[in-house]
Amino acid sequence: MSKVTFKLGKKANFSEWYSRILSLAEIVDIRYGLKGFVVYRPYGFRMLRTITRFFEEELERRGHEPALFPVLIPERNFAKEAEHIKGFAEQVFWVTRAGSRELAEKACLRPTSETAIYPMYALWISSYRDLPLKMYQSTTVYRYETKATRPLIRAREFPWIETHNVFSSLGECEQQVREDIEVARRVTWEKLGIPFVVLERPWWDKFPGAERTFAFETLMPDGRALQISTTHLLGQKFSKVFEVKFKDEKEQDQYAWQTCFGIGLSRILAALIATHGDDGGLVLPFSVAPIQVVLIPIFYNDEEKKVVLEKSGKAMEELKKHGIRAYMDLSEQTPGAKFYFWEMKGVPIRIEIGLKEVSEGFVTVFRRDLKQRTRVRDEELIRSIFRIADEMLEELKRRAKENFERRILHVKSKEELYEKAGRGYFFVFDFCGELSCAEKLSEETGLEIRGRRIDVEEEPEGSCILCGKEAKYKAYAAIPY
Amino acid sequence: MSKVTFKLGKKANFSEWYSRILSLAEIVDIRYGLKGFVVYRPYGFRMLRTITRFFEEELERRGHEPALFPVLIPERNFAKEAEHIKGFAEQVFWVTRAGSRELAEKACLRPTSETAIYPMYALWISSYRDLPLKMYQSTTVYRYETKATRPLIRAREFPWIETHNVFSSLGECEQQVREDIEVARRVTWEKLGIPFVVLERPWWDKFPGAERTFAFETLMPDGRALQISTTHLLGQKFSKVFEVKFKDEKEQDQYAWQTCFGIGLSRILAALIATHGDDGGLVLPFSVAPIQVVLIPIFYNDEEKKVVLEKSGKAMEELKKHGIRAYMDLSEQTPGAKFYFWEMKGVPIRIEIGLKEVSEGFVTVFRRDLKQRTRVRDEELIRSIFRIADEMLEELKRRAKENFERRILHVKSKEELYEKAGRGYFFVFDFCGELSCAEKLSEETGLEIRGRRIDVEEEPEGSCILCGKEAKYKAYAAIPY
Repeated sequence: MSKVTFKLGKKANFSEWYSRILSLAEIVDIRYGLKGFVVYRPYGFRMLRTITRFFEEELERRGHEPALFPVLIPERNFAKEAEHIKGFAEQVFWVTRAGSRELAEKACLRPTSETAIYPMYALWISSYRDLPLKMYQSTTVYRYETKATRPLIRAREFPWIETHNVFSSLGECEQQVREDIEVARRVTWEKLGIPFVVLERPWWDKFPGAERTFAFETLMPDGRALQISTTHLLGQKFSKVFEVKFKDEKEQDQYAWQTCFGIGLSRILAALIATHGDDGGLVLPFSVAPIQVVLIPIFYNDEEKKVVLEKSGKAMEELKKHGIRAYMDLSEQTPGAKFYFWEMKGVPIRIEIGLKEVSEGFVTVFRRDLKQRTRVRDEELIRSIFRIADEMLEELKRRAKENFERRILHVKSKEELYEKAGRGYFFVFDFCGELSCAEKLSEETGLEIRGRRIDVEEEPEGSCILCGKEAKYKAYAAIPY
Repeated sequence: MSKVTFKLGKKANFSEWYSRILSLAEIVDIRYGLKGFVVYRPYGFRMLRTITRFFEEELERRGHEPALFPVLIPERNFAKEAEHIKGFAEQVFWVTRAGSRELAEKACLRPTSETAIYPMYALWISSYRDLPLKMYQSTTVYRYETKATRPLIRAREFPWIETHNVFSSLGECEQQVREDIEVARRVTWEKLGIPFVVLERPWWDKFPGAERTFAFETLMPDGRALQISTTHLLGQKFSKVFEVKFKDEKEQDQYAWQTCFGIGLSRILAALIATHGDDGGLVLPFSVAPIQVVLIPIFYNDEEKKVVLEKSGKAMEELKKHGIRAYMDLSEQTPGAKFYFWEMKGVPIRIEIGLKEVSEGFVTVFRRDLKQRTRVRDEELIRSIFRIADEMLEELKRRAKENFERRILHVKSKEELYEKAGRGYFFVFDFCGELSCAEKLSEETGLEIRGRRIDVEEEPEGSCILCGKEAKYKAYAAIPY
């Protein structure tokens, strides 16, 4: 156990805070020795796994079926869709040898699985009766990022969920995009308390091979935008290349309509850590915390020890009986050092039991987000814990939303935009929709046009604040990760 | 839905039966186009996932913590342990390029993760207080098999669990091996009904880099032995190479003691399918079946339909309320075709509801293993289902054990062994323990010495039946996959 008696300045230096908390809390280890590849340590992996299962549950409830496709994609399949190969060519790892032999055909590690999955869909789908087909896999993908990597945020290996869906009409694709937004909302916002906007990407920033791309973006504490998931309306582009066809009710051959949805699990974990953490370390929602309740028995002699541990043992039993992930810290540290340590680890609720708690029939309950202690009568313990868990999530969401909304800034003029440009806001303004205008903005301010919002109705009111031409939509611009 | 009105001859031709059931029941699809790589379809993947979770639960209950290490292992780490690299050199896939660049150092896809994990253990472990360290990952590994591949059994990509454990003494390693045997017994035998023996491999057949290797082996219906898991006592071999050291209580540096355990998830799925299946298709234990109960409503006109569906709907609600994975088949097939189809899929329990069931207040329950129908009073439905689930597992285990034990054949002479040699038995006989003797046996009969049993006490009674020298142990020999 490391002693954590210093403060981590999250606001003063988010980047340093982030690196230090990943290491201190044993989320990931960056010392693996291969750029962009990290080790997920048990504390971090358990959080990642819980987040994964939250999404899996929502997806399966909506009829997506789990499957597993190979990590290797033969070059002949990978190269089939022209835009797709162009978009990913410089980003893939190639397996060219096995043992001491050169392979006859090289294969890439999946950077995403359209080209692994759709040849199989062509085999499985023959009739409109086989549709819709909604499948997903939870796996790791590989991209040879040439930008600076950052653990959980920009990696060469990252865990994600990808869903791949086939329909008989465009309308169903659009409906699927709405469903994906709902899945993201249920988990990312409702369960994890991470606010986000849904932006349709401009045409120059679409997923390679997609008709339309919708990105889910949050803001990190340093004000940079983080894309945490994307859903793509593929239309018939891939189905025409991979011959994903079906006979309609009139026995006519039709190309299928497709969508896919990529959920960036490690980025969501990064956003969770960054959104709720404070200078004391992690602050975790109850549902995702690997340890939900830590119990610290406090005693100063053997006599106290006996009664304190007796009561603590009973409390632990009670907690576990109710399915709570509880841990009793019997290490030789001082109570103060234990408090610091488990606060740093983000454990939502701490129970302290000392002599007073034994003799007066209560326990002291500490709540991580507010750093508040309360007395709870023994018989109220379990109920209190679940109540605090709910209240804490609401509080974390309230804070996160407030912070997020404060940083969505509607600006009326280029002057205002340029004056405030910097890492801190999602700027919203009337925009002409042209690439040249976006490029100029990016060069001059670092701000990138991330798209137009589709989860709320917004119409431009005047002309493009950058060039004065007719505005096509209200654009969201930020400095992205 | 395919019509399955023919029988699959499992005994007559196991190999064909196996291939056909994997395809018909949509377990895996072998048409991916890359030798040794298959697609796990939802029905197969759900089974694989349940088996995985059974093991994870047992491991975590015993203090193993989940983690995730990279799929790529840099060549410099992979090459460190001499025996290990020698054993795996011809079996690994190499990533040598990314985008259009040649990588400065090539990296292999993990064939197993000792060389990925132990450099990290060297960073994490410094004191005896950090021990024991018990970690695992559920992932996929990659081996360039040059033998003929066979889905789930011999693949170039296969899902497995690997545990990697560090201790301060040899005794704890030995205790860990016993614990691994218990984990395997709990899941493979108790929950899945797959019988196996635990064999210590002869010295020439150990895992590259291990001091001792223990294999868990079952027999497939064609009489060939299938290794479904292995646990290795690594001793200090790897710890010396990777500098996994700890300071003991006297502040002295010590090399750590290690074990690792590889659980062949896809082979266990193969054994599950092979052990319990029959000529009608799959027969699945209740706990692992993706669909545990299928409900077939039977009606011949709209009036019947109304009442039958009303009762069926209520039954479905009741089933789901009790957490049972139930599916109601409302497709347009005849009841007979549905019966065949779901029997082929191995659904443990079928409920039939027709007019008679409605008017007389019962349901007809069909049990897959015995192919028996019984009447169950409505109010007894849930209780009956759980009772049948238990009874069915016991029946499957009873049959499997009987079959398995019948095929463990103790032989007293070389003549008897050579006469009966062939695919069908685990032969047990007094053996000298020498490689030359084993090689001669293999050449002449195809039988391989798989090792000596360590889960039961067995001592040799006389001299080696092959060469007449002093017997060192009772050897188990079989034709392996």
